[in-house]
Amino acid sequence: MKSFNFLLDIERENKPRENGLTMVLDKGLGLENAESLMKISGEYVDFLKFGWGTSIVHDRDIIKDKVEMYKSFDIVPYTGGTLFEIAYKNNKLDDFFKEAHDLGFETIEISDGSINIPHENKLESIELAKNEGFKILSEVGKKDPNLDKQLSLDERIDLMQSELDAGSSLVIVEAREGGKDIGIFDASGKAKDDEIDYIVGNFDKDKILWEAPNKDQQVFFILKLGNSVNLGNVSTDDITSLETLRRGLRGDTLGKL
Amino acid sequence: MKSFNFLLDIERENKPRENGLTMVLDKGLGLENAESLMKISGEYVDFLKFGWGTSIVHDRDIIKDKVEMYKSFDIVPYTGGTLFEIAYKNNKLDDFFKEAHDLGFETIEISDGSINIPHENKLESIELAKNEGFKILSEVGKKDPNLDKQLSLDERIDLMQSELDAGSSLVIVEAREGGKDIGIFDASGKAKDDEIDYIVGNFDKDKILWEAPNKDQQVFFILKLGNSVNLGNVSTDDITSLETLRRGLRGDTLGKL
Amino acid sequence: MKSFNFLLDIERENKPRENGLTMVLDKGLGLENAESLMKISGEYVDFLKFGWGTSIVHDRDIIKDKVEMYKSFDIVPYTGGTLFEIAYKNNKLDDFFKEAHDLGFETIEISDGSINIPHENKLESIELAKNEGFKILSEVGKKDPNLDKQLSLDERIDLMQSELDAGSSLVIVEAREGGKDIGIFDASGKAKDDEIDYIVGNFDKDKILWEAPNKDQQVFFILKLGNSVNLGNVSTDDITSLETLRRGLRGDTLGKL
Repeated sequence: MKSFNFLLDIERENKPRENGLTMVLDKGLGLENAESLMKISGEYVDFLKFGWGTSIVHDRDIIKDKVEMYKSFDIVPYTGGTLFEIAYKNNKLDDFFKEAHDLGFETIEISDGSINIPHENKLESIELAKNEGFKILSEVGKKDPNLDKQLSLDERIDLMQSELDAGSSLVIVEAREGGKDIGIFDASGKAKDDEIDYIVGNFDKDKILWEAPNKDQQVFFILKLGNSVNLGNVSTDDITSLETLRRGLRGDTLGKL
Repeated sequence: MKSFNFLLDIERENKPRENGLTMVLDKGLGLENAESLMKISGEYVDFLKFGWGTSIVHDRDIIKDKVEMYKSFDIVPYTGGTLFEIAYKNNKLDDFFKEAHDLGFETIEISDGSINIPHENKLESIELAKNEGFKILSEVGKKDPNLDKQLSLDERIDLMQSELDAGSSLVIVEAREGGKDIGIFDASGKAKDDEIDYIVGNFDKDKILWEAPNKDQQVFFILKLGNSVNLGNVSTDDITSLETLRRGLRGDTLGKL
Repeated sequence: MKSFNFLLDIERENKPRENGLTMVLDKGLGLENAESLMKISGEYVDFLKFGWGTSIVHDRDIIKDKVEMYKSFDIVPYTGGTLFEIAYKNNKLDDFFKEAHDLGFETIEISDGSINIPHENKLESIELAKNEGFKILSEVGKKDPNLDKQLSLDERIDLMQSELDAGSSLVIVEAREGGKDIGIFDASGKAKDDEIDYIVGNFDKDKILWEAPNKDQQVFFILKLGNSVNLGNVSTDDITSLETLRRGLRGDTLGKL
């Protein structure tokens, strides 16, 4: 039972959820530290991303233990998109799928944020991974702001739709760890309202996961699109904060949901 | 015994202290992680705030264990003001007091930062909580910068004084987790020197606890008001840093106290 | 064995390394929390600084345990420069050396960032500490940006060279915990390219450790000076991130090394 449970008036769906998803970015937490955090707030984490290529520099044993630990809290751990891109670039997709499987990952992210992948090849990779038994999150957007700006809104939506059609479960809108000057955020980290309107007017919003690493961005999305918006790249420090924002239990959203 | 204890020339009062108080903001630390941190630096924490409505989304068992753990380090754990406001708004003050008591809290914060509470009702709530056996911290200021700016300095001081008279032990000056564009901080987080002068010229400074989440703000207050200034919303990462600032053991205050 | 080890194509020297050194700043982590972090990423830490005077406010037992724990991961723990400066200022260098030794430190930092030390005395202190059996890191630069700006580049290089000649193993270029408006960083934290060119053109770059607390600064140095640049004041949260930047496993350096 929750403390002060009589004050919990905004309900949330239980996991596994269809929307209101929270994706958290793990930059390399120790196993015990992560487990202590999950004991208090793991029920509010839907997806847990092993950030970019971090797993490559960590021991297999510890990655296996972390994957298993996260799963024990009904969290879906998955490999960050950069890891796929490195495997793709090195022509090692088969080894990548096998190792991801052996480590216990059942979901992987497929992206082309850091390297150039012809879009038909990205779609093929999505299908390939699906056939290998993985659930796929795919990400649209470039990590380099100058390249990212070359994508028009209509192009972005077309890419998103074709990735969904190819078998992606959810499409992630890139914002990196910092959330500034990238995708739908300007240089100060402020969200571009009209662009978001256009995207949600032309794409199933339950199939979008918005990277929104900063609190102001999380507040913005919750107030704009409702508390069942899917949000990602949430810092491990902010898991509880985000859940209280979704429930109207922090000043920024209290009485506004 | 401390390491290098022969270098510790600026003394500090032991807990429980009358001033030089440090209030730390817990945004949802795991029990074991928090305990490891308290083992090294718990003696420098006077008050530990379970931030805003975070406790509402956490299990009773873990909150009880955290409250007990903090108490074992002679720290006063207390419930953040937003929690009181939510209970007030829902007409559940009796349940709130009972649950706070059952969870082991002996101190609560009473604020009106997020909702509109007629000031006589806020004062009544302070008296009510006091009669229920709680020690009260009360907070003056609005979380919305636009509303907060409508408070004149004299009004602010009047509110502070009346809350003290009603039974509050200490009055907190709002600055949120971010410390920018709020209360006595401008949009860049810089403290408004003249406003602080006016407040301490017209109010017992040992009864004020200044929220000062950023290091520059902590340095500012220590250099301006002395190392026995009461400071709050200190991040769990900065407990040791603040103590060294108070003792002249970090460059910013070394040789200046 | 590493996860996805077939993707690890940029090799790094093993510890103890001659270059590509990473120095991490510990601001007061709990023993258990630090140990959990070192289990996953300790192999990427060469030097671990007990920041400024933090050790002075911590119990001897816990400092001894932390020193021993870090050593068990082949990390060199050392005392921050401010601690030396406080001892110097109080005429307690002998006690300082003895206590550092008793706590298990074999390396200390010697700096004059916060107090005024005639340079010949700083050099003497380096020699003295060396005779006491310590390995020395020395730091050049002032913590006060106004004082720091008074140092010309040529003066800075002269100071660095004379400290190396006096027995310092490595010279640290000051940037503090924040990395802004200090040393080779401007007020926005951007590195001054031409100044760095001048320094590396006139000093052995393997003997420099650049404090670079922010990710953009780390990326800048790796792209400019190569992945075996020595970097310091890395946050405990960013140990894994920095190692992936050095290996081209994060978007910012992927395909650029």
